[in-house]
Amino acid sequence: MIKIAVIPGDGIGKEVVAEGLKVLRKIEELSNVKFDFQEYPFGAEHYLKTGETLPDWALEEFRHFDAIYFGAIGDPRVKPGILEHGILLKLRFSLDLYVNLRPVKLYHPKLTPLKGKEKIDMVFIRENTEGLYAGAGGFLRKGTPHEVAIQEMINTRFGVERTIRFAFEYAKTKGRKKVTLVDKANVLTYAHDLWQRVFKEVASEYQEIETDHYYVDAMAMKMIRSPEIFEVVVTPNMFGDILTDLGAEIVGGLGLAASGNINPRGVSMFEPVHGSAPDIAGKGIANPLAAILTAALMLEHLGLDREASLVEKAVAKTIEENKVTPDLGGELKTSEVGNEVVKNLEVL
Amino acid sequence: MIKIAVIPGDGIGKEVVAEGLKVLRKIEELSNVKFDFQEYPFGAEHYLKTGETLPDWALEEFRHFDAIYFGAIGDPRVKPGILEHGILLKLRFSLDLYVNLRPVKLYHPKLTPLKGKEKIDMVFIRENTEGLYAGAGGFLRKGTPHEVAIQEMINTRFGVERTIRFAFEYAKTKGRKKVTLVDKANVLTYAHDLWQRVFKEVASEYQEIETDHYYVDAMAMKMIRSPEIFEVVVTPNMFGDILTDLGAEIVGGLGLAASGNINPRGVSMFEPVHGSAPDIAGKGIANPLAAILTAALMLEHLGLDREASLVEKAVAKTIEENKVTPDLGGELKTSEVGNEVVKNLEVL
Ligand SMILES: CC(C)[C@H](C(=O)O)[C@@H](O)C(=O)O
Ligand SMILES: CC(C)[C@H](C(=O)O)[C@@H](O)C(=O)O
Repeated sequence: MIKIAVIPGDGIGKEVVAEGLKVLRKIEELSNVKFDFQEYPFGAEHYLKTGETLPDWALEEFRHFDAIYFGAIGDPRVKPGILEHGILLKLRFSLDLYVNLRPVKLYHPKLTPLKGKEKIDMVFIRENTEGLYAGAGGFLRKGTPHEVAIQEMINTRFGVERTIRFAFEYAKTKGRKKVTLVDKANVLTYAHDLWQRVFKEVASEYQEIETDHYYVDAMAMKMIRSPEIFEVVVTPNMFGDILTDLGAEIVGGLGLAASGNINPRGVSMFEPVHGSAPDIAGKGIANPLAAILTAALMLEHLGLDREASLVEKAVAKTIEENKVTPDLGGELKTSEVGNEVVKNLEVL
Repeated sequence: MIKIAVIPGDGIGKEVVAEGLKVLRKIEELSNVKFDFQEYPFGAEHYLKTGETLPDWALEEFRHFDAIYFGAIGDPRVKPGILEHGILLKLRFSLDLYVNLRPVKLYHPKLTPLKGKEKIDMVFIRENTEGLYAGAGGFLRKGTPHEVAIQEMINTRFGVERTIRFAFEYAKTKGRKKVTLVDKANVLTYAHDLWQRVFKEVASEYQEIETDHYYVDAMAMKMIRSPEIFEVVVTPNMFGDILTDLGAEIVGGLGLAASGNINPRGVSMFEPVHGSAPDIAGKGIANPLAAILTAALMLEHLGLDREASLVEKAVAKTIEENKVTPDLGGELKTSEVGNEVVKNLEVL
């Protein structure tokens, strides 16, 4: 029995998670995997009613699950920052989800906004619990003409090494041949000097894996010009935030972007990258494929590779047949797309 | 007489600056502007011979020029970082070139790697002398398993305000209707909180100019999906570094990217964004259009709007007629492209 904590959250989060669960239940039928889903109410609604974002007792409960399946949080009635810090970042930091895993895979050439690209298939390993996200910093003379505002990018050998090691292990396990480091060591001569030294050391333990390096500005260009050359990319937290969203866009946008927040020795959290999209919530037109691909990523993480790849194939077929929501040029509703994926699972 | 210090630098820097100067001499012929060019030898060659990157006496001399026209620096024989810090960043910091101005303009639809985009025309105002570029930070327990490496993002009211003010003044002067702020204030709750507060204050003085805001990750996506919606974008140093290169790529790559490092009350420095490209140096195939458009940007900065726009038009015509180097799909040599631009100047 695989125990999964489900946090649908706000807006379209609820709608797309419902489709993800539909697909996972179909997987139960088609295999001998059994899931035990337990739903949690956290999000804007709960916060507005109770003042509570994510209580510590819930974090304790989560530790006893095999995974967390997350929808989206955010609501115009809640001040920006509160839910991000109180729920999303709190999950990352409290459960030490130190890798943000983001596949950037082109499921069909029609989906990319780039001319002449047919194959894009890379995976980002973003450091997820330090760097500029440490939350350290402060103000001096706040509100005066002489104000100074400081934000600290803090990296540790411990945090950098485990992330880079994860990237090489991932490449090795998945049969990928190259790991690319992206940093800005020519300017960030402290924090990213550490990244460069550790990368070199860890790489030397993986002789069979090729390595490569780009400064972040050159990487942003290269991802547009030649995205096909990348396999596994490892990068600090803030650069990962930017580059993974850029990556999502070049393979079709947030409607397809899945992510995992991983602690290899604890419970991990899986989340479609799109937000709660209040403008389209409740209309039944949200694209559920990101949530469904996120479910596939979770299956893969749980060691259910065959089931994960089945879901991926069912999604690819759904896209191929244009059985998609309007954002991808189709005419289907959220739940109809979910039904199509389920139908494709049956015939595959 | 307009006094211009010329630093051709290394590799293709020399080759493309020669074409830029060719165009500027033609401008002299076609107008009553007169230039006095004085060349400086700084770059890798000079460093390897003398150990000198950019001496203080040269910085003092530069202050008496109307502008600096820069090629490119970098050479495989010099350790990465030395020339960037010793020349490029030294120029920015010593001459207080606090705005990095980067137009992102699509000269012809065939140049963009994006499907279906015809018109892209935005200008980036990147803060250029603080943030993560302050050079502040350090190591604790360097080289041990307990190492901590810290880089400080330092922003000041003074530095942020003058940059944002420059953006609004630029929009006003150039008849652009919208200024977009890009930051990551939801995570960088100190440094970018300052950006948000100052942006709001300065914006209130420019009621006629619309404002807009994106988090940096969303901006990276939006620049691919809808680059046509942006007019003037203002952003901190490191994000500007990444987004302007992304911007260059969506309008045809570094072969066309011009930049200005601006001190509105002092001497400013103009530089094509591409590096010294040692791999193609000396072959006469480097694309000189970035250097020529950089010369146009310099003319505009010097108040020679008519001449600047003439050069821009001559470049656009050269591209239209496909009289370009191989990187843009043409068959011409560096100097032939320069000659074409000069020829177009004559007929325009
Ligand atoms: C919502 C925000 C705090 C978050 C981040 O910056 O990490 C998001 O952009 C992401 O990538 O998951
Ligand atoms: C060479 C490097 C230090 C520089 C920067 O990071 O600013 C470059 O990328 C640029 O954008 O001019």
